Amino acid sequence: MALMLESINKESIVDIEGVVRKVNQKIGSCTQQDVELHVQKIYVISLAEPRLPLQLDDAVRPEVEGEEEGRATVNQDTRLDNRVIDLRTSTSQAVFRLQSGICHLFRETLINKGFVEIQTPKIISVKYLNQKCKLFLPEGCIAASEGGANVFTVSYFKNNAYLAQSPQLYKQMCICADFEKVFCIGPVFRAEDSNTHRHLTEFVGLDIEMAFSYHYHEVVEEIADTLVQIFKGLQKRFQTEIQMVNKQFPCEPFKFLEPTLRLEYCEALAMLREAGIEMGDEEDLSTPNEKLLGRLVKEKTGFAQTYDTDFYILDKYPLAVRPFYTMPDPRNLKQSNSYDMFMRGEEILSGAQRIHDPQLLTERALHHGIDLEKIKAYIDSFRFGAPPHAGGGIGLERVTMLFLGLHNVRQTSMFPRDPKRLTP
Amino acid sequence: MALMLESINKESIVDIEGVVRKVNQKIGSCTQQDVELHVQKIYVISLAEPRLPLQLDDAVRPEVEGEEEGRATVNQDTRLDNRVIDLRTSTSQAVFRLQSGICHLFRETLINKGFVEIQTPKIISVKYLNQKCKLFLPEGCIAASEGGANVFTVSYFKNNAYLAQSPQLYKQMCICADFEKVFCIGPVFRAEDSNTHRHLTEFVGLDIEMAFSYHYHEVVEEIADTLVQIFKGLQKRFQTEIQMVNKQFPCEPFKFLEPTLRLEYCEALAMLREAGIEMGDEEDLSTPNEKLLGRLVKEKTGFAQTYDTDFYILDKYPLAVRPFYTMPDPRNLKQSNSYDMFMRGEEILSGAQRIHDPQLLTERALHHGIDLEKIKAYIDSFRFGAPPHAGGGIGLERVTMLFLGLHNVRQTSMFPRDPKRLTP
Repeated sequence: MALMLESINKESIVDIEGVVRKVNQKIGSCTQQDVELHVQKIYVISLAEPRLPLQLDDAVRPEVEGEEEGRATVNQDTRLDNRVIDLRTSTSQAVFRLQSGICHLFRETLINKGFVEIQTPKIISVKYLNQKCKLFLPEGCIAASEGGANVFTVSYFKNNAYLAQSPQLYKQMCICADFEKVFCIGPVFRAEDSNTHRHLTEFVGLDIEMAFSYHYHEVVEEIADTLVQIFKGLQKRFQTEIQMVNKQFPCEPFKFLEPTLRLEYCEALAMLREAGIEMGDEEDLSTPNEKLLGRLVKEKTGFAQTYDTDFYILDKYPLAVRPFYTMPDPRNLKQSNSYDMFMRGEEILSGAQRIHDPQLLTERALHHGIDLEKIKAYIDSFRFGAPPHAGGGIGLERVTMLFLGLHNVRQTSMFPRDPKRLTP
Repeated sequence: MALMLESINKESIVDIEGVVRKVNQKIGSCTQQDVELHVQKIYVISLAEPRLPLQLDDAVRPEVEGEEEGRATVNQDTRLDNRVIDLRTSTSQAVFRLQSGICHLFRETLINKGFVEIQTPKIISVKYLNQKCKLFLPEGCIAASEGGANVFTVSYFKNNAYLAQSPQLYKQMCICADFEKVFCIGPVFRAEDSNTHRHLTEFVGLDIEMAFSYHYHEVVEEIADTLVQIFKGLQKRFQTEIQMVNKQFPCEPFKFLEPTLRLEYCEALAMLREAGIEMGDEEDLSTPNEKLLGRLVKEKTGFAQTYDTDFYILDKYPLAVRPFYTMPDPRNLKQSNSYDMFMRGEEILSGAQRIHDPQLLTERALHHGIDLEKIKAYIDSFRFGAPPHAGGGIGLERVTMLFLGLHNVRQTSMFPRDPKRLTP
């Protein structure tokens, strides 16, 4: 029987009839350690080809840096080209089961908070897009190259349309339509030729928008608490998956505070300057400086405070570095009511209080040199009563990657899309 | 004060300071009937323009057929052109809060059944698409006109890509990757020039795929039970919303059986023929015949059975009318292991057991005259062990429409897309 079993190719699917018997000595190599199966009949349901494009054992082997062990590992392109097999590894199974959990916890938390889930269109008209004006880009977009488009164009019957870079405008319309608190989960498209560890041309956005009563911090707190509930839920319900991933990719457990640490931009600047970085007051953070700041925040201990957190909010960005629709801070017009959130030093959310007053919106657009005709539909959305509101968009793959301490967003996208990859 | 209040345009947003006082007589015109607010201060937060493009009172007025009442109603294009205001009506609020509930119940039910939520790419390569071969179309697609494409083309850097017409292939790959039971919610794109009450060029698909142990009916039952759990959940948790919509659009409550009625195609044919319809054994159902069948099923009473249901499964479609990847019925090779599900006589789901054996898949493709080179990637997905599996895709907007007894899918899509509408 054993001989016959060996003749069935690896990864084939079989049905087995047999008897379950207790064993005297625990079995070390299985999760089921107290019983074994005495096979009587075996049916091959689906026979795998004899030669697999990658071996599952190789695909789960930890990559030992700076040390040549002579044992095979599998490179990323081979994994992605043969994703069906790569997804069978215990690591991939754990990553994507945990990612499913993130979506579930996100919705569960927001439904409990009274949010309504909305569905926003992905094919949009040029009226709801101003592709050449980088300052109109939704949050999180990289600025387009001069005159270049960073949107994908779609042939729509006899016309052109575009793929939504963000559901932001539609979320805002829902707020203007009295839904008060909305969220959505869906694909977001960015035609950016960025080949980095953290950019995809198509990713999943977890988006929130909310009207508030007194202060935009009501929204910031709701968003941060939603993320905290996700982190807590993952650590509670997905411990097996976290440990499974850690076996291949060792990593410190993700740390966070309750309530979430909120730093103002000027405080962050002070910390960076203290660490020797030279930056202007109205200068944006570079990616290396974001990383450095993450480390400084994590390590910060001292007389007054110990942060020791992998998750924090950076609030009050300089107005100059944010899009025109961002609400200026009424106490300090060089600042804005806008924020990013970071996990392990990388941005996972960008958000802001939006200007809800058509007059102020017009002024800010003019200040930025934006052609008003091109954003007429956007401004008009606020002409029939619009509550003060704020929101933000979270990148699902980045949250999964950073929570698990992985190093490439392609590890947390089942079928990643980047400028060079469109398959499988 | 009352005078001042009247000077504030309708639909403006105001903050009010005042005192809540008990009243002696119940107030008839408000939901809050026992107290009233004595206003002391009023702040205008957002002043609406004096002239609204539509009046909310007009927008919720029931349309009385065949009777000219001389009172304004609002036509669909005016509503959609001014969607932010139209969405403020009690009817729209109820429709989309209930739709949010459908998504929530769908996920809640499937997570409890052990399904994993997946995210599938929307931008796909030509390798995963065979646009000219109508028999390769994912379920629910209308056949392309001769040589015509019913997919949207996207400019992807220097190449072309396409918008996914269905997540089917990706769901199947996840099943082959050992996820066993998966679901996803996301946009589905159909470049069909269909201007009907039930077609959109972009809609939301609720998709399920599942490996089974003995029979594809395991999957059919899981899907049908998921829909039943949705119906029950809606009737339990969204009674207020249902009644709100009924005020404007009166409708019989949605009826369903537990377990769900499952008819075989040949039984349906017999019912239709008894009602005077002439149809061949291997002919597909036309839309009017689907509608008629829905009425016949609902009304069917008799010696043996009383159906009285608005929801049923139609199983065992003729093999000839289904795509090449559909598993033939081993007991009767003219039939297939495929099924549609109907609500109030309209199709809301199409599904099948898929062929998981690359050899049989090749044979069926050749039988249909499909160029094997074009579907190589699809067939290759099954070469490294593939469990028997089945699934289906549900149209969210259709479920909302038919559950509520509405008559146009544009009423249940927040920002609908059709060949003539790309805004807002």
